[in-house]
Amino acid sequence: MQKNGKVKPRKPSGFPEFLPNDQMAFNRMVDAICETYELFGFIPIETPAIELTEVLLAKGGGETDKQMYRFIRGDTDLSLHFDLTVPLARYVAEHYADLTFPFRRYQVQKVWRAERAQKGRFREFLQCDVDVIGSESLLADAEMIGVVSKVFEKLKVGDFVVRVNNRKILMGFLESIGLDDSAGHVLRVIDKLEKQGRDVVARELRDSGIDVARIEKLFDFIEINGDVDDVFDRLMALDIENEHFLLGVEELRTVVDLVALFGVSSDRYRIDLTIARGLDYYTGTVYETSLNGFPELGSIASGGRYDDLAGYYTDKSLPGVGISIGLTRLFSKLKELELVGSKRATPSRVLVCQMGEGFLGSCITAYRSFQGKGIPTEMYPKVVKLKKQLEYANRIGIDFIVVIGESEFNEGKISLKNMRTGEQSLFHLEAAINTVKETISKDKV
Amino acid sequence: MQKNGKVKPRKPSGFPEFLPNDQMAFNRMVDAICETYELFGFIPIETPAIELTEVLLAKGGGETDKQMYRFIRGDTDLSLHFDLTVPLARYVAEHYADLTFPFRRYQVQKVWRAERAQKGRFREFLQCDVDVIGSESLLADAEMIGVVSKVFEKLKVGDFVVRVNNRKILMGFLESIGLDDSAGHVLRVIDKLEKQGRDVVARELRDSGIDVARIEKLFDFIEINGDVDDVFDRLMALDIENEHFLLGVEELRTVVDLVALFGVSSDRYRIDLTIARGLDYYTGTVYETSLNGFPELGSIASGGRYDDLAGYYTDKSLPGVGISIGLTRLFSKLKELELVGSKRATPSRVLVCQMGEGFLGSCITAYRSFQGKGIPTEMYPKVVKLKKQLEYANRIGIDFIVVIGESEFNEGKISLKNMRTGEQSLFHLEAAINTVKETISKDKV
Repeated sequence: MQKNGKVKPRKPSGFPEFLPNDQMAFNRMVDAICETYELFGFIPIETPAIELTEVLLAKGGGETDKQMYRFIRGDTDLSLHFDLTVPLARYVAEHYADLTFPFRRYQVQKVWRAERAQKGRFREFLQCDVDVIGSESLLADAEMIGVVSKVFEKLKVGDFVVRVNNRKILMGFLESIGLDDSAGHVLRVIDKLEKQGRDVVARELRDSGIDVARIEKLFDFIEINGDVDDVFDRLMALDIENEHFLLGVEELRTVVDLVALFGVSSDRYRIDLTIARGLDYYTGTVYETSLNGFPELGSIASGGRYDDLAGYYTDKSLPGVGISIGLTRLFSKLKELELVGSKRATPSRVLVCQMGEGFLGSCITAYRSFQGKGIPTEMYPKVVKLKKQLEYANRIGIDFIVVIGESEFNEGKISLKNMRTGEQSLFHLEAAINTVKETISKDKV
Repeated sequence: MQKNGKVKPRKPSGFPEFLPNDQMAFNRMVDAICETYELFGFIPIETPAIELTEVLLAKGGGETDKQMYRFIRGDTDLSLHFDLTVPLARYVAEHYADLTFPFRRYQVQKVWRAERAQKGRFREFLQCDVDVIGSESLLADAEMIGVVSKVFEKLKVGDFVVRVNNRKILMGFLESIGLDDSAGHVLRVIDKLEKQGRDVVARELRDSGIDVARIEKLFDFIEINGDVDDVFDRLMALDIENEHFLLGVEELRTVVDLVALFGVSSDRYRIDLTIARGLDYYTGTVYETSLNGFPELGSIASGGRYDDLAGYYTDKSLPGVGISIGLTRLFSKLKELELVGSKRATPSRVLVCQMGEGFLGSCITAYRSFQGKGIPTEMYPKVVKLKKQLEYANRIGIDFIVVIGESEFNEGKISLKNMRTGEQSLFHLEAAINTVKETISKDKV
C-alpha cells in the first residue's frame, strides 16, 4: 500500500516489459523470425505454459530444474516450462501417431526461470526454436545454418558468423589422447582460454594431472582455425585414427559442403572446434552464432544434433537437429548497444484531425478510405485545438496528419501534412492516399 | 512412471493444445485479429505472465481471484495473470508518464485460470483485447463496433451481430421504478428469461418482494427491441424522467449514429437493452457479440466503457472503452461446429523431392529459387522411394511437389505436380515458380 491507500503499480523484478516503441521493434523481430521459419516450411506449434512437474523433471538433474516456477493445485504438481525442448519432446511423444515425420516444427513462446535477479538475466523470455525431428540426414544440419543466416540477414542486426563443430571430433580427439573420461572437466577449463589465456589454462590442466605432452596436443587441436579447407587439412594432419574423430570430420565436411550448396555466403559460417554445448544431449553437429564486433553478446543462436529427443517418454527413435534464438536477451543487449530501436510508438500512419462537428462526416470518410486501402489510420477522438492533436501525432510518431476544416471542406479536398518533412498540401482524397502509400512503401525498403 | 520405466508424456488436463493443422488455423485467426487492430492504429503491448499477487488482488473480491495460479518464490508472492485488464491498469498506472493519451492499445496474450475441469472450460486461453484509454469521447465507443465488425468479417466465421446497450439506461430505468438497490438480483433473475420463460422469471421476482406493477414495467422495458429507431421511439414512449436514463439514451443514440457513419452495415449491430455485464466496472456503453444461428456460443466479443481503469493504483483519471475476444473458447466451439479447420498442416507450398545424389545440386537450386520468391518450400531430407516422399507431402497437405530425375536433369527442366489436381508437367524453373505463385494467390482470395 502507498500513502494514498493505493496499491503500488509495479511489475515483479526480473520480468521485462516494453514501452510501445520498443514493443513494436521487438514484435517486428518476432515477425521476421516466424516468417523465415515458415519460408523454410517449419510448422508452428504451441504447448501450454504449464506442464506436469513430473514430465518436466523426467530428464532430471539439470540446473534449470531448480529454477522452475512450481505450484500445487489440488493434487496436481505443476510448473511453468523453462525451455521449449522438454515440452517439444513431450508433444512429439504424446502425439506421435498424429504427426508426420520428418516433423519440421518451430515454436516461439515465452519460458520462465526463477533466476537470481541480475542485469541481463530475465525470469521471462521469448525463445524462438526450430527443429527437424525424425531424420538423421545431414541435409537438415546444413539447412539449420541456412535458416539462421536468413533470419539474421532479415533482422539486419549486423554481420554475424554461425560457428559450427561436430561433437564427435572433439570426443574422438579426447579419446585419442585418453582424456575422454574427464571430458567435462577439460572442456570447462578450455572454455576459459579466451578470457584467461594459455598459461592459466595450461597450469590448471597440469594441476588436474594431465601431462605436458597431452596438454600440447590439446592446444594444437583447439587452436586449429582458418577457412574451411585449412581446418580440414590441419585436422587430417593430426593423423588421428580414432573412429569417432574420423566420422565427425566426415560429417562436418558433408555439412559445410551442403551449406555452400545452400548458397550461404562463406563469411557467414566457420568451423570452431572448441564448441561443445550440452554434453549429455548433443551428439553430432553443434552451432553457436556470434555477432561480429560484439563478443559480449555471447552466442545469439545455438543448438545442434541429438540422437534421442524424447527417450524419457517413449521408445520411439527420435533423432533430430535444432537451433534456438533467445530473443529477449538478444533484444535487450542490442538495445543497450543502440543497435535496435524505433521512434514509432504506433502502427498508425495517418491521424485524421478533428476541426469541428460539422466536418465529422468528411473526417470519417477520409479515415475509412485510408483504412480501406490497408493504411493503418486513426482519428483523434474529439475536437480540440489542432496544436494538441499535432503534439499527439508527434509524440507517438505518426507519419501523416489529415486536416479537414472550413476551406478544405468547401473545396472538397483534404490537407495532408507529412510530419517528417513538414510538407503540407491540399489533395483530393484519392491523391492523398496514393501519396501516403508511396511514402510508406519506400519506408519499408 | 509407465511399465517401460518411462514418464508418461501427457499435458495437464484443461490446457488446450493443437495438432499442426488446427494450430495453423488458430494462428491465422490470431493474425487476422492483430492485423485488424493495427489497421485501426492500436498499439501492441505485452505484460509479463506473472504479476505480484498484491497487484492482481488490488481490486479484490472477484470470482477470478480464487482461480489464480499463485506461488511464493523467496519472499515474493506471485500469480499468473487471469485476464489482461488488471495488467493493463497496472501498466498504464506504472508507465503513465511515458505514455501518450488517448492510449490506444491492443494486447493478445494467454491468461490462466484454475477453473474446474469441464468441457468448454480452459485453464489457459488466449485473450485478444483492444482499448482506448484516457478518452471520454463516444467516437471511441462507436469505433469499437467498427473494429469488432472488421475482425469478424475478416475471420469469415459467419453472420454476427454486435449487441449494444448503455448501462445508464438500465440503471436509470431501475432507479425510476425504485429497484436500483436490488439491481444485481433483478439482473440475475432477468438473465434467465430466454431459458426459463416469462412465467418463471415473474414468479421469482414476485417471490423477492417486487410487486406486479413493477414487474410489468420491467417486462415492458426489457422486451423492447427492433430496429434502432423503433427502440428509441419505444424508450421515449416510456416517458421516464430519470436523468441517468435520459443521459444513457442520448449516449446510445450518439453511438449508434456514429456507427452508421463508420459504415458498419446495419445488420451487424443492434440495441439489446438487457445487456448489463460486470456491474462494478462498466459505466456506459456495453457490448456483446453473437454469431447468428449459434446461441450456444454465447458472446464471442464483449466489453464496454468504464470511468476508471486504474483507480486501485493511481489517482489519475483514466476513463476508457474496450472489447475482448476470447479466441481459444471461440476456436474450440467453431471447431466442434466444424466451422473452422484446415487440412494443411504445414506452411510449405512446395516439396522438392530427392531422386538421387547426382541431382542434389539441381534440387537445392530449385528449393532456393522457390524460397527466393517468397514461396514456403522444403526439400525431402534424403533419397528414398518417391512414393514415400509423395505420401509425406500428402499427409501434411503440401500443394506442389518438384521432381528432378534423370530425364528432367538432362532437359534442364523440373517436373511440377499439383497435389490437389494431380496435374503434372515439365517446366523451366521460372515457369514452374510462376505457376505455383498463381495458384497460391488464388488460394488466398
